[in-house]
Amino acid sequence: MSTPAADMAADEVLLREDAAGVCTLTLNRPRYYNALSEDLIAALQKSFDAIAGDRSVRVVVIAGAGKGFCAGHDLKEMMAHSEQAYFDDLFARCNRMMQSLMALPQPVIARVHGLATANGCQLVSICDLAVAADTAKFALCGVRLGLFCSTPSVGVSRNLPRKRAFEMLVTGEFVDAATAVRDGLINRAVPEARLDEEVRRLADSIIEHPAVAIETGKRMFYRQLELDVAAAYDYAGKVMAGNMMEEDTIEGIKAFVEKRPPRWRGR
Amino acid sequence: MSTPAADMAADEVLLREDAAGVCTLTLNRPRYYNALSEDLIAALQKSFDAIAGDRSVRVVVIAGAGKGFCAGHDLKEMMAHSEQAYFDDLFARCNRMMQSLMALPQPVIARVHGLATANGCQLVSICDLAVAADTAKFALCGVRLGLFCSTPSVGVSRNLPRKRAFEMLVTGEFVDAATAVRDGLINRAVPEARLDEEVRRLADSIIEHPAVAIETGKRMFYRQLELDVAAAYDYAGKVMAGNMMEEDTIEGIKAFVEKRPPRWRGR
Amino acid sequence: MSTPAADMAADEVLLREDAAGVCTLTLNRPRYYNALSEDLIAALQKSFDAIAGDRSVRVVVIAGAGKGFCAGHDLKEMMAHSEQAYFDDLFARCNRMMQSLMALPQPVIARVHGLATANGCQLVSICDLAVAADTAKFALCGVRLGLFCSTPSVGVSRNLPRKRAFEMLVTGEFVDAATAVRDGLINRAVPEARLDEEVRRLADSIIEHPAVAIETGKRMFYRQLELDVAAAYDYAGKVMAGNMMEEDTIEGIKAFVEKRPPRWRGR
Repeated sequence: MSTPAADMAADEVLLREDAAGVCTLTLNRPRYYNALSEDLIAALQKSFDAIAGDRSVRVVVIAGAGKGFCAGHDLKEMMAHSEQAYFDDLFARCNRMMQSLMALPQPVIARVHGLATANGCQLVSICDLAVAADTAKFALCGVRLGLFCSTPSVGVSRNLPRKRAFEMLVTGEFVDAATAVRDGLINRAVPEARLDEEVRRLADSIIEHPAVAIETGKRMFYRQLELDVAAAYDYAGKVMAGNMMEEDTIEGIKAFVEKRPPRWRGR
Repeated sequence: MSTPAADMAADEVLLREDAAGVCTLTLNRPRYYNALSEDLIAALQKSFDAIAGDRSVRVVVIAGAGKGFCAGHDLKEMMAHSEQAYFDDLFARCNRMMQSLMALPQPVIARVHGLATANGCQLVSICDLAVAADTAKFALCGVRLGLFCSTPSVGVSRNLPRKRAFEMLVTGEFVDAATAVRDGLINRAVPEARLDEEVRRLADSIIEHPAVAIETGKRMFYRQLELDVAAAYDYAGKVMAGNMMEEDTIEGIKAFVEKRPPRWRGR
Repeated sequence: MSTPAADMAADEVLLREDAAGVCTLTLNRPRYYNALSEDLIAALQKSFDAIAGDRSVRVVVIAGAGKGFCAGHDLKEMMAHSEQAYFDDLFARCNRMMQSLMALPQPVIARVHGLATANGCQLVSICDLAVAADTAKFALCGVRLGLFCSTPSVGVSRNLPRKRAFEMLVTGEFVDAATAVRDGLINRAVPEARLDEEVRRLADSIIEHPAVAIETGKRMFYRQLELDVAAAYDYAGKVMAGNMMEEDTIEGIKAFVEKRPPRWRGR
């Protein structure tokens, strides 16, 4: 575990471990079901800002310490405040963190066990990929408290069929891992004993490819999704032509044509 | 059954029954497979306009009398006309009704048995949620008559994967309830004998939560879907901060933190 | 097989066969896994331009000769070039061809056997419908060579749930036919021995309906998908009112009301 000595206080709610290109960020408030307190949101933001420029990181994994992945916002902390301006600011900070995750050049995998609820379910939805224990459960349960999961709906409604997202939002009921796979909230579910192995396998299946392709591709992917088809094609075509100018790409294609293993440089 | 005495003629094609927060609207032209005649479209519009301001209604259920849910537009009635202006106006009225359903503050559940075809299938797609008998069948069969299901495609293509929606539209073939679940057209299918029980259970799982959250959330849900991610987050964050100012929401969160049942006021 | 005598050289990479309203275009570079060389892209463009105005064609089928459907761009040919301007132009031509396929008035069915990879997988995604052998495999494997499948992502991300499309793009791993059905990339998978029969059945289930409805509907379908719900309804309502003015549509509805078989003229 590497916890930057410089700022222990801010970082202890979030652990960082780097191994062979995979940076694992572990939400570390197990007594509070890893609720996303102000500190934890700030620590995630700080980590994403650092990782964005860190070429040694190829894949980010987000995990939770203790019994579950993440139970959403820290309601106790929120209850110490009552002005709308405070909540405006809190949700804006949380939104910025979620969008920084999406903007990272590296793919981000949610490693989900136990519960992922409310803002914790949002975090799963906004990760590029998600692997869960087959015992994991998901809910958008804010509605049970009268607080509709509005910001979580942004990520969830862009991943699930409309009626399934709506059902989760208005009933607050739990969805099991198999249903989450069917509906597109997660990529796959495996027995919990195999969860780390499967996350590592998925990460490795990304890391073996040149960083330049992954980085270019992730940014392109989300941007083209917000364009109409004609504009998306124009944009994607230009990105792909630029991709052809990269040294590793030229080597990759040459190696394929010459039926030999590629010798990557930049990754 | 409460049928407003004021306007029996216009309302008899649509029955309204209110019970414990659930308003059930039953399409009541069983001899015509509940085809959406001008009268029935107008009756639905009138009901939605009334329900929009009716705080006693927490959930709306749309059901069909007789052998099936709804067979679409009333073709016999349509054949009495031949001017394009008439059809422009007819479809505009129907479109307005569908959008009024979406704009209702209360969630709307389609209760589907037998057939839901063409405009009837649109009605299912545009409801927020849908529960069907496992014997129910769905089709966008206008193409069989040379009348492509254009307005139904608006709702269906926003719920189903693209190729599945396209297949229904160009073949007109029936899709069974299990396929409709897989593709996201309905939330679930149950044996017909349990259909009312399951609809009631789903409605109750909504009604138990504060109205303010559901109402705020439904409007937010559809609006943010039409924004890009950054704008959706800005909007959802502001809605959620406003939601935090509601009395019931504060009570809900307090109760949760204090591990006691909430005492709702506004719902 | 009809290969226009005028331009044999340009067309031999693509075979055309017309039978009973179905125009089958067969990618015919089996030694190269039907890679989309400049010649083949140009031949597809030329065919689509011709088919767009050919009223005898009701449905287009795209198939591949030899062991598989299509392995993507012709990498060997690409490697003979090194200027970005060349690739800009190459991808622009390929993008134009894909969009001409979408703009065809006739539905297009991908008939997939063996492999459909990279640009070949894009071709499947951009077809209106797809039927595959249950042994078929799909991948967006450009990333393996350092060339992210950017233009393929345009079609694939509009058909699949977001996390599934992302996984295919960053891992390059193969997806089997059952998974492709689940995720919406193809409509169905059948034993390879029944593939032609199933494609023919699907084509016939379209051809039996009037051309005017199919043509109007396909154009409307993709256009309304890019509008917000209110604009989509306005547009679809006007298209449908126009559809009601067509001779075949009036006959179709009359026949239905009179419970007799329709006598189509224009199809």
